[in-house]
Amino acid sequence: MHSDVINLREKLGLFSDHWAPRVIAALNDYQLKLARVKGAFVWHQHADTDEMFYVVDGALRIELEDRTVCLNAGELFVVPKGAMHRPVADEECCILLIEPRGVVNTGEAGGEYTAPNDRWV
Amino acid sequence: MHSDVINLREKLGLFSDHWAPRVIAALNDYQLKLARVKGAFVWHQHADTDEMFYVVDGALRIELEDRTVCLNAGELFVVPKGAMHRPVADEECCILLIEPRGVVNTGEAGGEYTAPNDRWV
Repeated sequence: MHSDVINLREKLGLFSDHWAPRVIAALNDYQLKLARVKGAFVWHQHADTDEMFYVVDGALRIELEDRTVCLNAGELFVVPKGAMHRPVADEECCILLIEPRGVVNTGEAGGEYTAPNDRWV
Repeated sequence: MHSDVINLREKLGLFSDHWAPRVIAALNDYQLKLARVKGAFVWHQHADTDEMFYVVDGALRIELEDRTVCLNAGELFVVPKGAMHRPVADEECCILLIEPRGVVNTGEAGGEYTAPNDRWV
């Protein structure tokens, strides 16, 4: 496979819907995904994996059971495996996610925010 | 473990040596590493893993056997498993690497650029 240079902002310009991650690259059995987010997501957890959030543009809060972390552009946070969390963005925010291929965005919570998996941009 | 918010530029301010990656976060059995690079690295490959390069600041060329890719800030590239490559930066460049824990920066090439592994900042 002939992999390409990936420009985060260029890829972000190709979609506008919220809470609908797009895969931009594969790294072994992991995937890098971009998402535009706004408002409050659902509380959920990923029983089998850590999940990395990196803020490309804007600001993101990640509510955890015992505290809330606040991320600005250029900052990242790894939500530990099994930790209940709820991402919240008061204004639109662009994030990069890294996690194993096949992870569902809403974990085991399901619901209307559950996005199709393995959708590339 | 109580993980923290990680600011890439703040972490980059904590070291100044070149070609000496610092681990900033773990994601399952993967590690995120920051490095300052300048000049030409050694040709090498990683037989067992892909390797992701993301440019935080500056510009990086990655020479491959059949072509060269050029990355600017905000761009990333995944060097496929087993592909011979040589990163080159004409001016100092700051990069984020993602790869499984234990990957040696010079692969099987060894030599003076081989950096200590698992060094956190």
